[in-house]
Amino acid sequence: MSQPKVGIIMGSKSDLNVMQDAADVLKELGVAYEITVVSAHRTPERMFSYAKSAADRGLKVIIAGAGGAAHLPGMVASLTYLPVIGVPVKSSNSIDGWDSILSILQMPNGIPVATVALNAAKNAGILAAQIVSTGDETIISNLIAYKDQLKQKVEESAREMESSD
Amino acid sequence: MSQPKVGIIMGSKSDLNVMQDAADVLKELGVAYEITVVSAHRTPERMFSYAKSAADRGLKVIIAGAGGAAHLPGMVASLTYLPVIGVPVKSSNSIDGWDSILSILQMPNGIPVATVALNAAKNAGILAAQIVSTGDETIISNLIAYKDQLKQKVEESAREMESSD
Amino acid sequence: MSQPKVGIIMGSKSDLNVMQDAADVLKELGVAYEITVVSAHRTPERMFSYAKSAADRGLKVIIAGAGGAAHLPGMVASLTYLPVIGVPVKSSNSIDGWDSILSILQMPNGIPVATVALNAAKNAGILAAQIVSTGDETIISNLIAYKDQLKQKVEESAREMESSD
Amino acid sequence: MSQPKVGIIMGSKSDLNVMQDAADVLKELGVAYEITVVSAHRTPERMFSYAKSAADRGLKVIIAGAGGAAHLPGMVASLTYLPVIGVPVKSSNSIDGWDSILSILQMPNGIPVATVALNAAKNAGILAAQIVSTGDETIISNLIAYKDQLKQKVEESAREMESSD
Amino acid sequence: MSQPKVGIIMGSKSDLNVMQDAADVLKELGVAYEITVVSAHRTPERMFSYAKSAADRGLKVIIAGAGGAAHLPGMVASLTYLPVIGVPVKSSNSIDGWDSILSILQMPNGIPVATVALNAAKNAGILAAQIVSTGDETIISNLIAYKDQLKQKVEESAREMESSD
Amino acid sequence: MSQPKVGIIMGSKSDLNVMQDAADVLKELGVAYEITVVSAHRTPERMFSYAKSAADRGLKVIIAGAGGAAHLPGMVASLTYLPVIGVPVKSSNSIDGWDSILSILQMPNGIPVATVALNAAKNAGILAAQIVSTGDETIISNLIAYKDQLKQKVEESAREMESSD
Amino acid sequence: MSQPKVGIIMGSKSDLNVMQDAADVLKELGVAYEITVVSAHRTPERMFSYAKSAADRGLKVIIAGAGGAAHLPGMVASLTYLPVIGVPVKSSNSIDGWDSILSILQMPNGIPVATVALNAAKNAGILAAQIVSTGDETIISNLIAYKDQLKQKVEESAREMESSD
Amino acid sequence: MSQPKVGIIMGSKSDLNVMQDAADVLKELGVAYEITVVSAHRTPERMFSYAKSAADRGLKVIIAGAGGAAHLPGMVASLTYLPVIGVPVKSSNSIDGWDSILSILQMPNGIPVATVALNAAKNAGILAAQIVSTGDETIISNLIAYKDQLKQKVEESAREMESSD
Repeated sequence: MSQPKVGIIMGSKSDLNVMQDAADVLKELGVAYEITVVSAHRTPERMFSYAKSAADRGLKVIIAGAGGAAHLPGMVASLTYLPVIGVPVKSSNSIDGWDSILSILQMPNGIPVATVALNAAKNAGILAAQIVSTGDETIISNLIAYKDQLKQKVEESAREMESSD
Repeated sequence: MSQPKVGIIMGSKSDLNVMQDAADVLKELGVAYEITVVSAHRTPERMFSYAKSAADRGLKVIIAGAGGAAHLPGMVASLTYLPVIGVPVKSSNSIDGWDSILSILQMPNGIPVATVALNAAKNAGILAAQIVSTGDETIISNLIAYKDQLKQKVEESAREMESSD
Repeated sequence: MSQPKVGIIMGSKSDLNVMQDAADVLKELGVAYEITVVSAHRTPERMFSYAKSAADRGLKVIIAGAGGAAHLPGMVASLTYLPVIGVPVKSSNSIDGWDSILSILQMPNGIPVATVALNAAKNAGILAAQIVSTGDETIISNLIAYKDQLKQKVEESAREMESSD
Repeated sequence: MSQPKVGIIMGSKSDLNVMQDAADVLKELGVAYEITVVSAHRTPERMFSYAKSAADRGLKVIIAGAGGAAHLPGMVASLTYLPVIGVPVKSSNSIDGWDSILSILQMPNGIPVATVALNAAKNAGILAAQIVSTGDETIISNLIAYKDQLKQKVEESAREMESSD
Repeated sequence: MSQPKVGIIMGSKSDLNVMQDAADVLKELGVAYEITVVSAHRTPERMFSYAKSAADRGLKVIIAGAGGAAHLPGMVASLTYLPVIGVPVKSSNSIDGWDSILSILQMPNGIPVATVALNAAKNAGILAAQIVSTGDETIISNLIAYKDQLKQKVEESAREMESSD
Repeated sequence: MSQPKVGIIMGSKSDLNVMQDAADVLKELGVAYEITVVSAHRTPERMFSYAKSAADRGLKVIIAGAGGAAHLPGMVASLTYLPVIGVPVKSSNSIDGWDSILSILQMPNGIPVATVALNAAKNAGILAAQIVSTGDETIISNLIAYKDQLKQKVEESAREMESSD
Repeated sequence: MSQPKVGIIMGSKSDLNVMQDAADVLKELGVAYEITVVSAHRTPERMFSYAKSAADRGLKVIIAGAGGAAHLPGMVASLTYLPVIGVPVKSSNSIDGWDSILSILQMPNGIPVATVALNAAKNAGILAAQIVSTGDETIISNLIAYKDQLKQKVEESAREMESSD
Repeated sequence: MSQPKVGIIMGSKSDLNVMQDAADVLKELGVAYEITVVSAHRTPERMFSYAKSAADRGLKVIIAGAGGAAHLPGMVASLTYLPVIGVPVKSSNSIDGWDSILSILQMPNGIPVATVALNAAKNAGILAAQIVSTGDETIISNLIAYKDQLKQKVEESAREMESSD
């Protein structure tokens, strides 16, 4: 695969079953990525160096997933000028996901995190592809094809339901 | 101003007191934008044509703000392959902002909306600048300078508080 | 069956296990209906044409069910003068149903959606029957019989519990 | 005014500042209504006779507004086969409106209440007009004109904002 | 058993698996009770006659359990001067119990319902026993013994845990 | 005044503006009461002796109001066999009243607290009167008269609204 | 084991499956502890004597876990000058843990409880070790080693994920 | 003042009106402190060096206050072995304080933050004093005197209310 444009990180190995969706959809859309574990609370220095070096290493977007008091997306956003996408993960220590959502979404003025729905790593991947698609006609075509595919699946379901009615 | 790269839309004129922050910070960061009112519920055709024509008109990102059952960001996202940033507005008909947040954030798989904090139009503007900064060294410099300015203000507050202690 | 008076739509095929209750109770109450899949986010054009043509096709009420950031009922309501009944579906990507409820219920002034309880497609069907019953003595009789049946079941349970006490 | 088709009731005189909107929009849409106070908890017999006699007195829809543990809409719905629209009122004894919303919305299977947004008596009035419009071309025209008026106001705001930009 | 002093009612037969606890603890505390199904929404007339006749039939307290938009406890309280204890039931159609709790607890001024914890029918039974214990030394003794028994169980657990430590 | 039958206590002097309603309605209903400040957290010994001696001093019911992490009602309930009514107070340190409600309502099995609505000290007073009314025809008459008065006020409001319509 | 420095108590034997984590991590960090059951509501006197004697018995910190209307941590804090750590337990009678959290966290001014995350008894143990570590180089070393171990586990996960990518 | 034992930090100068209470009560209890502004998001390097050097500079506890997506307390806790007390601040960009509370409280296993009530900087100060009081008889005396003073104020209020009754 070519030079990664999207970095996918997560606070814990156990978030992978959610975060894999981001990697899968990026692959499907033809966007190179890298993926690893970076914990804000257990490896703060690693988080610092990851975020500080991200732009220089050629990344264009960072996707960060975390659960509970999820500080990873916001802290990474504070350490880089790249856009950061936050995925609230409904981990086992989360209160129905509310803690994950609020501690990612409610960032103070000056330091945005582009937050997606609870566990919506797939949408994080699509959003990252939309961001890196600027000036890349192939990815734009892939995004348009992806949308078309979604439409066709619905239309197919509709036909089935209408005929079986 | 040059050709707008960011389209700022809002569901109602009354959202302007929140959404103006997006315009202001984009101006500060040197990113051209356009701004108008588009209501998902009261002008659905207008919303369709706005979203459908956005990419062709040269926009790279759309910022959409709305309150209550806020359908504008998600519907625009369904109608374009451009990245869409949603700003949940705590309008007068909102239940403490929860309805605005959840109806923007919780988009289904396939159609992401990059959601920022309640009323955080400034962060929407910064995020839009981050997205369009790819390959534009001036905006990157502006973003770095903006971050530096935030840091300096905190350090100044710190000096004041420490000395008056 | 005769010309449908009620259109039942849902955002995804997976909502059918909830939405089937609307169809079943309409059949029981003697109201003709049609049922299909229409996604606000994945098939926005289809949603437009469905809603725009509904009154002309003879529909008197539309029942729309959706989960998460549920935009289908509100968008359909924006596109027709027919009454629209919204069913918040507790889908797998919903936060305990709160997102579904709030994004259907909290519509802005001017565009009502008649919202029923979480997953309460049966009640949506009954409400639709009440609405189309105006001037149709058969449906009114069926509604009265339905209410009577509910009462008798409770009275039966009461007798059982009192005697086994 | 002609024979009322819509009955507007509220649990307390203090709800009138919210519920007046329903009356006003019905007048605007050309639908005859009656309006009074009926308390589920303080005048249960009055509520019984109001609801039981509503259909015979020629009403086609009942709009019921109440706050806190709001039982009026649901109890009226249990006593008539007419469609009942519930307006959750954010009264002084309400917890941010959540109690009003949940005790109106979450009706059990068999007894629907068509719930509108918190304090949205205007939408209750429009919904009532939509329901009684079946077979009444004048009301349908009024509803279409009303929707058109909403659209024009947004377009006017849009023109203003775009030109002042 | 002697003349019932406590009436236990529930909105649906399916609430019995929760409400049985009230009956069991009343039996344990030596308080005579009756138990049956009364639905506010499906048998409103039955509810009226039950509540209106309760005091004359010798009842001193009514325990009413219901789920979702739970109107039974509050409506019964509006129809009698007897104290009414409400048990919010987390039924299948309830949103984590919040709807049940708020629609029972948040009664307006003038019409109290003595609300206990979610599903806490046992506590409703104990509370009913406390209320009817006035002037009945046997029940008071039973209540004191019951409290003592709770204490002894904790002390036993403590001894076990301390010794196994 | 005669021997108090109801003890009204509150966690802080600042709760008096809410709790006074309990005293006022008890006076109106002819029930003797005492009123004072008892803090679970700042005067735990005082709370112990108050609760332990309550029955011997002739009290029949205790009304306890508190805000935030409100432990007073539940701790008093653990220390007496008398029925305890809890009033959740929306104090300045409360999160919209949710903390007060949940820490009073959600008592464990064995130790009930009869919880009333947020700030509903008036309903606590009425409930206390209902409890002590057993065998006291005067209080029963007062309760019936009180209910009648509530009804008349609503009927008066209804007449006014109907005539001004 | 030497003289306990940390007392671990819980409201019910059934909380042990959560609270055992506190004991385990204290053992791992080399801090002596004692563990038992103390119920605020079922054994108030036992709670009084436990809390009142804690400092004299040589305890430096108390960890108290409880669920639902959790009064144990706050009441113990009111009875001792020792720091008290509260563990909200998501017990079977808890509403998703919100009641446990709020009734422990929202203590009034003057009586702090150091609250940790829902079910986070392990963190309570670590916090207790941090508190007693003042002037104890061994525990400080253990804490530093513990943190290092957390870091190494993350780094190991990172290496695995990166290589399997 | 002597060598500070407690470090008070806050995310923004605007948090001082809340956080000053921590400083005031520490002064009252005779505990030396330092106070300054440290922002996790705007000055991440400053936060790193503050937290990393805290123990070496002689601090025994850190009190960190922040609002919204409050990452300061948790990030500082990840960078030091000292106990960290978190104060959720209900800042202007907070959703009723829920975001502040959850993003401070819900820390993952291994990295505790001792969370106090919303805006409860006074309690943070008292807790810090309790922690540093180990082996310092003066502070213990001050804490006991402080508790006694709280008790006396309540008893005074009680006497007033009882006599004016």
